[in-house]
Amino acid sequence: MEFTAAMIAGFLKGEIEGNPEVKVNTVAKIEEGFAGALSFLANPKYEQYIYTTKSSVVLVNKTFTPEAPIAATLIKVDDAYKSFALLLQIVQQQMYPRKKGIHPTAVIEKDVQLGKDVYIGAYAYIGEKSVIGDGVAIYPQAFIDDNVKIGTNSTIYAGVKIYHDCVIGEGCTIHAGTVIGADGFGFAPQSADEFMKIPQLGNVVLENHVEIGANTTIDRATMGSTIIHKGVKVDNLIQIGHNVEIGENTVMAAQTGVSGSTKIGKNCMIGGQVGFAGHLKIANGTRCGAQSGIISDITEENKTLLGSPSLDHQQNLRSHVIFRKLPELYRKVGQLEKEIQELKKE
Amino acid sequence: MEFTAAMIAGFLKGEIEGNPEVKVNTVAKIEEGFAGALSFLANPKYEQYIYTTKSSVVLVNKTFTPEAPIAATLIKVDDAYKSFALLLQIVQQQMYPRKKGIHPTAVIEKDVQLGKDVYIGAYAYIGEKSVIGDGVAIYPQAFIDDNVKIGTNSTIYAGVKIYHDCVIGEGCTIHAGTVIGADGFGFAPQSADEFMKIPQLGNVVLENHVEIGANTTIDRATMGSTIIHKGVKVDNLIQIGHNVEIGENTVMAAQTGVSGSTKIGKNCMIGGQVGFAGHLKIANGTRCGAQSGIISDITEENKTLLGSPSLDHQQNLRSHVIFRKLPELYRKVGQLEKEIQELKKE
Amino acid sequence: MEFTAAMIAGFLKGEIEGNPEVKVNTVAKIEEGFAGALSFLANPKYEQYIYTTKSSVVLVNKTFTPEAPIAATLIKVDDAYKSFALLLQIVQQQMYPRKKGIHPTAVIEKDVQLGKDVYIGAYAYIGEKSVIGDGVAIYPQAFIDDNVKIGTNSTIYAGVKIYHDCVIGEGCTIHAGTVIGADGFGFAPQSADEFMKIPQLGNVVLENHVEIGANTTIDRATMGSTIIHKGVKVDNLIQIGHNVEIGENTVMAAQTGVSGSTKIGKNCMIGGQVGFAGHLKIANGTRCGAQSGIISDITEENKTLLGSPSLDHQQNLRSHVIFRKLPELYRKVGQLEKEIQELKKE
Repeated sequence: MEFTAAMIAGFLKGEIEGNPEVKVNTVAKIEEGFAGALSFLANPKYEQYIYTTKSSVVLVNKTFTPEAPIAATLIKVDDAYKSFALLLQIVQQQMYPRKKGIHPTAVIEKDVQLGKDVYIGAYAYIGEKSVIGDGVAIYPQAFIDDNVKIGTNSTIYAGVKIYHDCVIGEGCTIHAGTVIGADGFGFAPQSADEFMKIPQLGNVVLENHVEIGANTTIDRATMGSTIIHKGVKVDNLIQIGHNVEIGENTVMAAQTGVSGSTKIGKNCMIGGQVGFAGHLKIANGTRCGAQSGIISDITEENKTLLGSPSLDHQQNLRSHVIFRKLPELYRKVGQLEKEIQELKKE
Repeated sequence: MEFTAAMIAGFLKGEIEGNPEVKVNTVAKIEEGFAGALSFLANPKYEQYIYTTKSSVVLVNKTFTPEAPIAATLIKVDDAYKSFALLLQIVQQQMYPRKKGIHPTAVIEKDVQLGKDVYIGAYAYIGEKSVIGDGVAIYPQAFIDDNVKIGTNSTIYAGVKIYHDCVIGEGCTIHAGTVIGADGFGFAPQSADEFMKIPQLGNVVLENHVEIGANTTIDRATMGSTIIHKGVKVDNLIQIGHNVEIGENTVMAAQTGVSGSTKIGKNCMIGGQVGFAGHLKIANGTRCGAQSGIISDITEENKTLLGSPSLDHQQNLRSHVIFRKLPELYRKVGQLEKEIQELKKE
Repeated sequence: MEFTAAMIAGFLKGEIEGNPEVKVNTVAKIEEGFAGALSFLANPKYEQYIYTTKSSVVLVNKTFTPEAPIAATLIKVDDAYKSFALLLQIVQQQMYPRKKGIHPTAVIEKDVQLGKDVYIGAYAYIGEKSVIGDGVAIYPQAFIDDNVKIGTNSTIYAGVKIYHDCVIGEGCTIHAGTVIGADGFGFAPQSADEFMKIPQLGNVVLENHVEIGANTTIDRATMGSTIIHKGVKVDNLIQIGHNVEIGENTVMAAQTGVSGSTKIGKNCMIGGQVGFAGHLKIANGTRCGAQSGIISDITEENKTLLGSPSLDHQQNLRSHVIFRKLPELYRKVGQLEKEIQELKKE
């Protein structure tokens, strides 16, 4: 797999600056470039590296104007990051073609519907009445319980466990070790100090094009469904409680937790290690800084929150500036107190 | 499975208001009700829905007095939530009968004692000398290492890993992906910058009726046992360090972490994402708000804590109210300083 | 396995105080000691127990001077904790000899290189072209994808998943359920509200003597490698993002998260539930208290940080002391304001 700069520019509809005949056969970060590699520059923080990179070709934004000579051939495109991602997808398809075939050790229980061109790896388990769409890949040792539906072209990585009756949309990706549909955490006090289990009879629904990271847990609803809407991207080690709903195209970073029955809107951006209390409604476009604690409804759209309990982002930062100065402030107030006592004596 | 309101009222020893002959065949949340469904109302926050719900039957507390006409048949009971949970348990047993039988692919090593009516799923592994009690269910791909004991009627879900010598009580539930008995995190510095592994030779003991969520980790003791006492309920993605002890009927929400050798009392309620430092003693009945950081012993029972590091809950809230006003407070102090300078000049 | 105090003292080059002929056959914590057990005392917090322990032999530091008579035989060594760890290692090797052999159900794909004396457990999967070094132990149901390298004497516990092209060094330990090499969390906005997946084509490299806890996730790099350097110890449920680098002998407690591209230095000690923002550089020897949030570069070595966002540890504690008094401070400032108004009137 080797391409000239001219071929890549043609494919991306970009403009070339430099030698169009130089060849690349792999990709590299701009600061780690070498001959034969293609890199990109999107974040201005990395601009320094373009003047010294050994990569043969660099994708840059059309708006980029060099401030010194550059050895690499440049390909100017509208959005260097997006164009690079597109090239990576092609490289990936070449290097790692989609796996196919059903391993003889896979256990497929009765009344399972298997689509065309599926991959089912070694020691995977598929329970009764489950429906596996065309082009689905199920990696080794995955556990798909009874009556699960998985839409076309979804990928279920090794050791994922999906409990009974859950529904996975089309084009979804679920990374290794993630658990979909375990019981929600529901117990009713039945005496001063004992608890009665509330059976969790609902399910989990992932709509299309959802991606879930590794070792994440999404609990089934008590009744009804825990719903992850279209296009949501959820990172590793995230906890999503029963009856939660996450709106379209919301993105959530690692180790965040959402308590039961909270509804998060569309297009939200949630940082890592954020916690949401239960039964909240969070407006569309909300942004939460890492480690925030959200304990009440957010009704206004597109707000940015920070802190635990969270405040408006700017307000939190301003208060934190003074938090650092608290010992000084405290001393100053003590001093003023004395001075006033002096003045009162006079 | 279809029941009349009268049959359900009879079973629950409740009183009927409305048509005793109306039939239900499923359950639904009150706000999502439909004909043929049974719902419940316990939390007054949801009272509004009872006047419009399409559910055919609603369980309510005896103390509930409607403020408008209600179309549904009511069944009045002492505790609507608990009664509903009871019905859900019956529905669950009907819909999902306990699995039985030993799958031919399960690997059962030598000297294993298997009880009656056990279920052992595909590709499960049971190590030498382990003892599996009557009625235990071990789902596919679970890993039970050597010399593990599992008490009667416990359920071990798919892909759970239990290391050697651990003990699981009766009637316990462990959800998918959880790891019981991995090494505690113990290393001794052996030079300026290198560490020597401290072998972890103890085990983990879960007493009876403990429930553990998905992808949680409970480390084995260095020596002796990490002990989870009777009736404890632990959510997903929780970390419990070596030699920790958690008292009877304590409940712990997702993503909380307990550092090594900490002893938590009985009947505590611990929120999500809470962190406990190591070697602490936490009194019975302690409650910790989400994201709290507990860094010292709690000796008084039934306290409620909040914040990181934690304070008394009310104290934390009061301080946080002022935290929000810190920039204003800071300006005011600066202003007072000036005014005092003025006064002193006079 | 039974040893006299004299034999142990000889092995550890320690001095005996008491009966050299007393025999021990197991180990116990000093506060839970019994006849026939060996204990140790290193932390002065536990000194009270040495006067009452029923253990037959106790390892103590040479510097220890008893303040009352002690029934147990003492063995005085330079570092009681380290000596005890050494004995535990011997006990462990006796009690739990390294497993050997390849289980007939293990799936080993073509072109795999297997070293000598490997253990490969039931239902383990090893993908094409992987290289498994001498003395490696791979427990049941582990997933080793294509082209993975595992160095000599490393231990991979049950249900670990290692994605393709990752490299594990020599003498490494990876606990159950951990996922190495899942995709980094990379998405490029491709319209107002949709995201395009950035393929993650790099890998994860663990250098020698790295230990990783249970259910931890270490993401593969977008390009290049996520690198965990020699001697690093990482606890359970930790998230390490793509292109992160963790320096030699750094230790990280449970549930901590490191965002993409952050480089952490050598010999750092990171508490539990700490969060690191992305693209940071953290100096060697940095210490972070539990639940800290690190949001900017740390350039000075050997600093101790605390809080979210983090401050210098002492500064944070001093500010937090005043945080507790904020309601009082606020009232006092209000009072001063009034008094100044009074003074101005005069």
